[in-house]
Amino acid sequence: MAVVKALSKAPCDVTLVDRRNHHLFQPLLYEVATAALSPGQIAVALRHVFRDQENASIVLGEVTGVDLEQRRVLVGDENLPFDHLVLATGSTHHYFGNDGWEPHAPGLKSIEDALEIRSRFLVTFERADRTASAQERARLMTVVIVGGGPTGVELAGTMSEVARRVLQGEFRQLDTSSLRIVLVEGAQRLLPVLPPGLGSRTQRDLEELDVEVLLDTRVTDIDANGVGLDSGARIEAANVVWAAGVCGAPVEQGLTDFARKDRRLEVQPDLSLAGHPDVFAIGDLAHVESGGKQVPGLAPAALQMGRYVGRMLARELKGRPRADRSPFVYRDKGTLATIGRGRAVAHIGRAEFGGVVAWLLWAFVHIWFLVGFRSRIMVLLDWAFAYATFDRGARLITGDPFSGEVPGGRSDRA
Amino acid sequence: MAVVKALSKAPCDVTLVDRRNHHLFQPLLYEVATAALSPGQIAVALRHVFRDQENASIVLGEVTGVDLEQRRVLVGDENLPFDHLVLATGSTHHYFGNDGWEPHAPGLKSIEDALEIRSRFLVTFERADRTASAQERARLMTVVIVGGGPTGVELAGTMSEVARRVLQGEFRQLDTSSLRIVLVEGAQRLLPVLPPGLGSRTQRDLEELDVEVLLDTRVTDIDANGVGLDSGARIEAANVVWAAGVCGAPVEQGLTDFARKDRRLEVQPDLSLAGHPDVFAIGDLAHVESGGKQVPGLAPAALQMGRYVGRMLARELKGRPRADRSPFVYRDKGTLATIGRGRAVAHIGRAEFGGVVAWLLWAFVHIWFLVGFRSRIMVLLDWAFAYATFDRGARLITGDPFSGEVPGGRSDRA
Repeated sequence: MAVVKALSKAPCDVTLVDRRNHHLFQPLLYEVATAALSPGQIAVALRHVFRDQENASIVLGEVTGVDLEQRRVLVGDENLPFDHLVLATGSTHHYFGNDGWEPHAPGLKSIEDALEIRSRFLVTFERADRTASAQERARLMTVVIVGGGPTGVELAGTMSEVARRVLQGEFRQLDTSSLRIVLVEGAQRLLPVLPPGLGSRTQRDLEELDVEVLLDTRVTDIDANGVGLDSGARIEAANVVWAAGVCGAPVEQGLTDFARKDRRLEVQPDLSLAGHPDVFAIGDLAHVESGGKQVPGLAPAALQMGRYVGRMLARELKGRPRADRSPFVYRDKGTLATIGRGRAVAHIGRAEFGGVVAWLLWAFVHIWFLVGFRSRIMVLLDWAFAYATFDRGARLITGDPFSGEVPGGRSDRA
Repeated sequence: MAVVKALSKAPCDVTLVDRRNHHLFQPLLYEVATAALSPGQIAVALRHVFRDQENASIVLGEVTGVDLEQRRVLVGDENLPFDHLVLATGSTHHYFGNDGWEPHAPGLKSIEDALEIRSRFLVTFERADRTASAQERARLMTVVIVGGGPTGVELAGTMSEVARRVLQGEFRQLDTSSLRIVLVEGAQRLLPVLPPGLGSRTQRDLEELDVEVLLDTRVTDIDANGVGLDSGARIEAANVVWAAGVCGAPVEQGLTDFARKDRRLEVQPDLSLAGHPDVFAIGDLAHVESGGKQVPGLAPAALQMGRYVGRMLARELKGRPRADRSPFVYRDKGTLATIGRGRAVAHIGRAEFGGVVAWLLWAFVHIWFLVGFRSRIMVLLDWAFAYATFDRGARLITGDPFSGEVPGGRSDRA
């Protein structure tokens, strides 16, 4: 989207191909997974965003391959020719070679993922309320979150609040606040991308929310009933959420020469593929170094890459020589992670801080970046309501909660 | 819900069993199907509604049978005993014996139905934009709505507005306003439950929105590519929506003695089943006569029946003899049907009117009845935005639009 926007006045036709008709604001996806927001509130139709940009066309379709020699993109059974190509297919879950874990531990990348997690999470309270077995109740009332990065921290903190505040008192037998939430992180601290002080601050905040934090711990097994750890311990848990590894999600055909082990594409300093100065990879898909460090897989970095390529192409289409390209430089404007109601941590320049101020900053920044005025206002109001009342408006279990093995298997839902 | 609320101060325990964890405000379901509202905006969690009612418990489960002699309800593998039982399982689509039509012509009863229709409707524009065949484009750009009652009228009018206003200008090739919408009704006029003048007024309003209205016409065949009519004509259409027949949706076992041909349950004047004065059927499930006329399957009638049974039981639990029961009397407070932006018809007492006044009344009444303050405010704002900007916020095609045969088959979506 950033590339398309940057090309709005360039003398060219721009075609945006996406297998979804909408843009998803991923940083707030955990809010859908925990029933605070509806999918429609964190997504906008691509056609709507670009309706007034005359040189932009949208194609709803899945790109299955790229022919770099013939300069064509394969979309279904169509071939789209290109002069310049920008690849921005992002990243996907990576189970470290244990693909059998996926059905038991959904990740959080798409709306379907979020609704899957929401449905499983809400259904287990219902089941725990009805079971006569104390052992089964304990299993149902345990959530393991694998991965202590921003997504894992956000999910752990928010799920704790849902159990301790939102659902509190809604069951006649079950004490929902007895929900056990275990956050498992392989590194020595939470939020490894942030300074160590903020990691321990985050851990303290989570522990105040009754989240158990296991550091320096790796998951060795995930099945339908729980999780095995490298300490030899096993946790019986009805809900396991994968917030650990991601890898690049390149198109299927034509780019293997550029793919690294983590499936990200190796790019030149100008984000182009080696030997193909008109083909670029940006965002989570690209492995980029800037200032000697790897650019993190975060939304601001992806936005900066998109703007960089879009503006460069716009200049070149107006006649600037390709030789003038300067390398992409990532500007770290700061990193924010939220933990729960009024709790967050921030690292901006040399400043490190937490608490309500960080949370307000986080809320402001995220609402601001939500695409489109309408979403901004509605999300703001939804949050204001949720904050004031501890209510969550999107608590729907749809699809058939009794078909299949929820939790444990997939079924239709909405 | 009305029964449970009416029993809030009665000396009894009330158990509400539902296979969904939420209450759905069905009169606005067409707004979800046409991408104006998100599912979360027309639904509330049952537990949330009754969190403060101490004598009420919620059980998420599907009732598969009733044992009237043993006074037990079968929920999954559990038996719930009862002293009094109120059945309110509603109605479902009825394809007049042609169940093979269902996959090609989804109805509109659940959130899944609405999301199915939304997804099919939005995807066909994308396909029409990409096809090279004029014949295929014509098929894709045709919608047939079977049934000219309130749901059919609302869908026809709103789909026309989406095509002519919301999507207008968002496709570079396709003229979305060329969408052909055909509304097929078997009777001599639209909205047969309303006075004839309002039916013709509605028809005029729809025709101004370029909807083709076929009266006195019956569908004889529905397949993946279109619809056959009893006139011998055939309409090639990618989207067919079923808004015609409904029938009762009783539980599977134990009530066959009371089921009519239309699967509604025959009830006594006090809404109890014959010979079982402690077992009631209410809402769309019940076949009730009041003042010599059949009570219509509308939300206000269901609400009145619920309140009637709940209050009667509350009185009897406090000692009033059963012999004092007076028969249920339906009070028709008026009927409203909306057609589109600023267009509706109203029949209240002896007054019949249409236009903006009817539409404002319709909007006011529907927002008012939306359960819970939060939903009310949010829906109001969403509508205000939609009215001011012709934008629709819930335009998500989720699930995989390329898997299976959408339109024509089912796939996961959200």
